[in-house]
Amino acid sequence: MDEYSKVTPEIISALKNILPEKYVLHGDKEQLEPFSHDEISEKKYSHFPEVVVRPRTADEIAEIMKLANREKIPVTPRGGGTGLSGGAVPIHGGIVLFIDRMNSILEIDTENMVAVVEPGVITNDINTAAAEHGLWFAGYPMSFQSCFIGGNVSENAGGGKAVKYGVTGRYILGLEMVTPEGEIVKLGGKLVKNVTGYDLIKLLVGSEGTLGIFTKIIVKLLPMPGKVVDLLVSFKDTASAIRMVPVIMTRAKVIPAAVEYMDLLSVQTACEYLDEKLPYEGSGALLLIELDGNSETALEEEYEAIGELCMENGALDVFVADTRAKQEKIWNVRRNIAEAFKAVSPDQSAEDITVPIACIPDVMPVLDKLSEEFDIQVPCYGHAADGNLHVTLVRNPDQTIEQWEAVLPKALEKLYEATAKLGGVISGEHGIGHKRKQYLHYSLDETSIELMKRIKRAFDPNNILNPGKIFDL
Amino acid sequence: MDEYSKVTPEIISALKNILPEKYVLHGDKEQLEPFSHDEISEKKYSHFPEVVVRPRTADEIAEIMKLANREKIPVTPRGGGTGLSGGAVPIHGGIVLFIDRMNSILEIDTENMVAVVEPGVITNDINTAAAEHGLWFAGYPMSFQSCFIGGNVSENAGGGKAVKYGVTGRYILGLEMVTPEGEIVKLGGKLVKNVTGYDLIKLLVGSEGTLGIFTKIIVKLLPMPGKVVDLLVSFKDTASAIRMVPVIMTRAKVIPAAVEYMDLLSVQTACEYLDEKLPYEGSGALLLIELDGNSETALEEEYEAIGELCMENGALDVFVADTRAKQEKIWNVRRNIAEAFKAVSPDQSAEDITVPIACIPDVMPVLDKLSEEFDIQVPCYGHAADGNLHVTLVRNPDQTIEQWEAVLPKALEKLYEATAKLGGVISGEHGIGHKRKQYLHYSLDETSIELMKRIKRAFDPNNILNPGKIFDL
Repeated sequence: MDEYSKVTPEIISALKNILPEKYVLHGDKEQLEPFSHDEISEKKYSHFPEVVVRPRTADEIAEIMKLANREKIPVTPRGGGTGLSGGAVPIHGGIVLFIDRMNSILEIDTENMVAVVEPGVITNDINTAAAEHGLWFAGYPMSFQSCFIGGNVSENAGGGKAVKYGVTGRYILGLEMVTPEGEIVKLGGKLVKNVTGYDLIKLLVGSEGTLGIFTKIIVKLLPMPGKVVDLLVSFKDTASAIRMVPVIMTRAKVIPAAVEYMDLLSVQTACEYLDEKLPYEGSGALLLIELDGNSETALEEEYEAIGELCMENGALDVFVADTRAKQEKIWNVRRNIAEAFKAVSPDQSAEDITVPIACIPDVMPVLDKLSEEFDIQVPCYGHAADGNLHVTLVRNPDQTIEQWEAVLPKALEKLYEATAKLGGVISGEHGIGHKRKQYLHYSLDETSIELMKRIKRAFDPNNILNPGKIFDL
Repeated sequence: MDEYSKVTPEIISALKNILPEKYVLHGDKEQLEPFSHDEISEKKYSHFPEVVVRPRTADEIAEIMKLANREKIPVTPRGGGTGLSGGAVPIHGGIVLFIDRMNSILEIDTENMVAVVEPGVITNDINTAAAEHGLWFAGYPMSFQSCFIGGNVSENAGGGKAVKYGVTGRYILGLEMVTPEGEIVKLGGKLVKNVTGYDLIKLLVGSEGTLGIFTKIIVKLLPMPGKVVDLLVSFKDTASAIRMVPVIMTRAKVIPAAVEYMDLLSVQTACEYLDEKLPYEGSGALLLIELDGNSETALEEEYEAIGELCMENGALDVFVADTRAKQEKIWNVRRNIAEAFKAVSPDQSAEDITVPIACIPDVMPVLDKLSEEFDIQVPCYGHAADGNLHVTLVRNPDQTIEQWEAVLPKALEKLYEATAKLGGVISGEHGIGHKRKQYLHYSLDETSIELMKRIKRAFDPNNILNPGKIFDL
């Protein structure tokens, strides 16, 4: 374990020499509280920073990092705070580097089809600005209305459109970054192809703020598809639903924008929470399939082919949502599943295991067993065609917090162990952060973890940038 | 510069203890010659190995690496030998590790839509096997008929379909690899999403055989589109042609499978070489636009929209190739440009600079100036919508080899300097290897190169795996 220095009054003064005083927050517990946690509900993962700084430029960040590196003070970068792995929480105290003031969209370059943005831009704002030119950033996550693009890059976030469009990393063409030692580097550019040296951009994407602090991001944009159709298809059980996923892609030859899976418990709970009705009576599992494109004729051909294929393969019903209103009704249910379970019980562990898509049905008996053994609810929904499942462990309201806290680590271990046996990994989009680092060995062998640690040391010899995340050195 | 040991008779014996004798080649210069070069024509980049080994398993490779690491003998992995940067050439002698015997397609998993292959499989063989199931690997390079998939991963190779489908890296979901220290690691799996720890797979892709030796590769497959249409569009000059590229994508809202650019000199030379005719009379530049999909109606809507847009924006003519024969006629010309110039003069430098697509017209006066100043031919063609240009410097047959060898480094420096000024990089798909390492500083700042060197040392403390490539330590 590394030894860190405390943030002394001298350090505070030094920070105030780098930044205007009002952007150096310290001493007031209430003011620091929002920086002590992310969206994980469990208290045990929260930790207060000693000071929060709100820099505006890469040069300021470089100076802060040089100071912190020299003085051995941990620095934790923070974006929108919407994470679910504790990645932005300063578990060793020190400095939180909040990037909210670096929130300019510097350029929407339509000729090169890229956006050049600062890391504190809210992800949805990029799409609002790009939409004026018929363009969009297709790799955004579900939290796009509040997350920052800098956080998306750090976590390699991805959303419901990953089947066709991939996740954040596919769209990051260039980065300006401050290293843990306080150097500013520029990587890539407005360039679609680039093989000059190791792909540091791709390494930095998803490195959870442990290798550098992004200060400028070049995001690839795509032409926005003009038309969207959603299909809500009900099946008697998960196996029948999941078996359809490769069939859609190989037989109908269509790559949908989204193929979301919802189990009965998830959709029921969300419908009750919203007082909404969806046609799921008598079914055991639902697929929500979104198609997009520009040709109305082609979309019709596609959804008819998929609908027929589903019916031939045991679907109970196919509901076509071809208007904005019908689509929003379905997606609203999908988006509110997590909230709905929070209403049932605020104490829950939102997981995001990934397994080979053909193995999704094999996950279900595992969840039934967890539910039974630990007397908890285990709803499951998520991105079926990516094999990425939001298994959520929800405290039984009859359990005490102490019982729940004793149960949860055991349940997680069983979940992760079963996932590994199926060839899966413990996280598909939320990241490892603080919460999952003790379970990393379920997904990675010893040599791989050792190589990652060596990379961390190569970038950050004093281990001051977001220490204690992903692994301990 | 590192000091390496020689391959002694004791080392040969040790290798013969690891492998059957017949797979340890040494002593016979003729037998070793094919391993002394890749597809670069210049003699100065060739270098003989001391011994060539042809292992069959990851365990054998691990043993070889342990031996080499202990004895400080350089090891250069080699695939199909189709590279254009000297990456597979053993410039410090030592062992060439030829992976041709590791050539099994282990699995075409249609349920998970992946292929599991060994690194020595010829890339096209994956597509032949996948095609039986209506699937394909869409990230393949132009040399797919002779290159190995292991080499594609090492170089992050990409081809003419990168606009829509991206390059090799997008499709690599899992790797088994032997580290320079002889450990076997397994990364990823049959998994589309995965954020467990640093993305080592993406770092290894394009690392030019300097960080590890791949022994098993999991390749994502896509449903194969059923229909293809090509448009050959002529323009008066490059600027008019290139201006169309973002217009096609943003106004017609179509992402073509390919948008290839050919200047008049390239297409003329290739047509003469093949004794072929294409409708380019009176034009100065051509775009070859490929669309693919499944709906005939949608494809027709798309190509008509693009054709009209082109004509509105100054195109001289649009030729629609909607049959296999017409398409092959055009692509045959495109594919034979390099060969055609080899017939003009075998001495040439095949470059692959990448610039922001909107800057492609600005490259043209640079090439004219190079041509004039150095009295050489500089044809230009390539992947327009990726900004990836095959600028080729061709020796004037009137120049002596000595004159050419004096001229080339100067011309390359001017080309790379101009590329950097336009925000571009020196390689979009061929890699740095041996040939371009002295020019790396045109694309990367000092800190970035230092970070890359630290990564290299983290993986390969003794610098024995493909040393002297990308940079010198």
